[in-house]
Amino acid sequence: MRTEEQVLERIERARRRRPRVREERITLAHGAGGKASGTLIDAVFVDAFRNPELERLGDAAVVGVGDARLAFTTDSYVVSPLFFPGGNIGDLAVNGTVNDLAVSGARPQHLSAGFVLEEGFPVADLRRIVDTMAAAAAAAGVQIVTGDTKVVQRGKADGCFITTAGVGLLDRTVVLDAGAARPGDVVIVSGPIGDHGVTVMLARGDLDVESDLVSDTAPLHSLCAEILDVGGDGVRVMRDATRGGVATILNEIAGASGAAVVVDEAAVPVRAEVMGAAELLGIDPLYVACEGRLVAVVAPDRADAVLAAMTRVPSGAGAAVIGRVADDPPGLVLLRTAFGGTRIVDLLVGDPLPRIC
Amino acid sequence: MRTEEQVLERIERARRRRPRVREERITLAHGAGGKASGTLIDAVFVDAFRNPELERLGDAAVVGVGDARLAFTTDSYVVSPLFFPGGNIGDLAVNGTVNDLAVSGARPQHLSAGFVLEEGFPVADLRRIVDTMAAAAAAAGVQIVTGDTKVVQRGKADGCFITTAGVGLLDRTVVLDAGAARPGDVVIVSGPIGDHGVTVMLARGDLDVESDLVSDTAPLHSLCAEILDVGGDGVRVMRDATRGGVATILNEIAGASGAAVVVDEAAVPVRAEVMGAAELLGIDPLYVACEGRLVAVVAPDRADAVLAAMTRVPSGAGAAVIGRVADDPPGLVLLRTAFGGTRIVDLLVGDPLPRIC
Repeated sequence: MRTEEQVLERIERARRRRPRVREERITLAHGAGGKASGTLIDAVFVDAFRNPELERLGDAAVVGVGDARLAFTTDSYVVSPLFFPGGNIGDLAVNGTVNDLAVSGARPQHLSAGFVLEEGFPVADLRRIVDTMAAAAAAAGVQIVTGDTKVVQRGKADGCFITTAGVGLLDRTVVLDAGAARPGDVVIVSGPIGDHGVTVMLARGDLDVESDLVSDTAPLHSLCAEILDVGGDGVRVMRDATRGGVATILNEIAGASGAAVVVDEAAVPVRAEVMGAAELLGIDPLYVACEGRLVAVVAPDRADAVLAAMTRVPSGAGAAVIGRVADDPPGLVLLRTAFGGTRIVDLLVGDPLPRIC
Repeated sequence: MRTEEQVLERIERARRRRPRVREERITLAHGAGGKASGTLIDAVFVDAFRNPELERLGDAAVVGVGDARLAFTTDSYVVSPLFFPGGNIGDLAVNGTVNDLAVSGARPQHLSAGFVLEEGFPVADLRRIVDTMAAAAAAAGVQIVTGDTKVVQRGKADGCFITTAGVGLLDRTVVLDAGAARPGDVVIVSGPIGDHGVTVMLARGDLDVESDLVSDTAPLHSLCAEILDVGGDGVRVMRDATRGGVATILNEIAGASGAAVVVDEAAVPVRAEVMGAAELLGIDPLYVACEGRLVAVVAPDRADAVLAAMTRVPSGAGAAVIGRVADDPPGLVLLRTAFGGTRIVDLLVGDPLPRIC
């Protein structure tokens, strides 16, 4: 029932929708991972490139090459500042691609890295970034096997942009898909949310706040393997909660599954510092990017075992059940607040946190 | 003899060399594909990432995933202007990655595309670029299966940068390597050189020259397949002559093989318009980028058949033998000029043609 058929049905739904970009010019919101991003992707990229793997809009495409089933993914990184507590653009780029492969159920193996450098960028900074990438690759058990470097004139970029792509082997039979969630499933998050986004905002110095917060950037390949080993085909979907945060992932899952996701606000792990900074910034931590956290939707009979297994892996030590999949209202994410109320958690419209990754 | 052993020896040589970047800041020359690029790549990227595939510095890495042998490659595109006669950044990005896979002996199959867009970039321009990419992908028989879009603030990029990565299946047994050329081998170029670079320079309007010249951007997968079908293991190496032009490729081949490459200037196909513009720009057409031309080094007993086969493929219609591999002087490229003299064709030091791709 799930898998092939459901995927095809979603593609058909997307085709019928045919969204349109109303703006004449690109805005920051088009890169924020929310509503505007989704429309741009559907109306421009998917519309032109049209193929089932792209239209699935997973974290990685699943492709056959020879007899092998591969996951293949890419991400561009434009984070500002380039260096922040807990990491820099280099480990962000490596971990991001490793995680897109891992949450797709693949074993991350080989990465590429394309650099766009601004004339005048300090070679010492580049070296620091590249050394961090090398360490991140080693930690994730992947190799950076191919790359490219371009340089543009001063004022035509912002120091350093990195685009990583990655391939990994899909040797498990489990099919993970955002559309596979079903009523009764349990929603688990792997740790406290929003650390990365708030850390980067604070590193910009826009808020006059002192903090010991560090980015959560980390590879999730071991955690994903553990979840799949224990959860088996009870694991419906895993997604890493990057741009747009947990709220965006849950909306994608609800939308693709045609089910409701009901989140218990009090159960969502958020550090006090993140909560405080988010309040000052006027944003909900549910929308703040993580770079080392994932959301897993798991069948009810496997949820306890999966949660227990997650907490045994360092990157899942703070894992918690945050909600359930329900029948109604289909396609929406509901938040049961600490005060007993309920509100809809929609996709972001603007971009409160530009260039967080 | 060639292949594994030679590759390992080259890696050892490169390790012993340990080049250093003397500049404290990135210059345009670091992105030009010449001497400064080579030093940056060796001293920063290869030094940090260290693995045999990266150190081989081929157009694509060759990696095993499951039972499959894949070619995997990436390139970032920052061409300015974005639109030029004969193409735009979109087909450049698709063809460039297709060609890096094809000259590695692989069948190009799946591409990724990462976009960095500048706030304010016209959506209509993006659509035009994306439509061109879709057409280029269809022409090359590949699918763009995954992607990413980031947006940076106005003034922090230059309209649109694209990074493509690609995977292809290596199902041939032939081993292509820049170090595989040997004395007596024949050097073939697939058509007139420098059209792309000169077209882009003219499109910038810096030279007050009218011209009908168009970019040579084209996919070379059919041409590469034909060369390998006919040439078999007599094909030593194929490289597409992009940044740094044919001169840079020949230097890489000479350096890696420890042999000389002797080019007959009169035999190099160059359009009169390219020759004229190159003279005005003060550069040798041998250094001007092509985006749809390759250099093939072929064993002497297969050269005639390969050349004949190339001319039957549209993208190889203008193919010509331009020189020979010789014993001496090892590692250098010599040009026999039309006037009977001989000069060394070295790697470029500066960047006469910034942002050509």
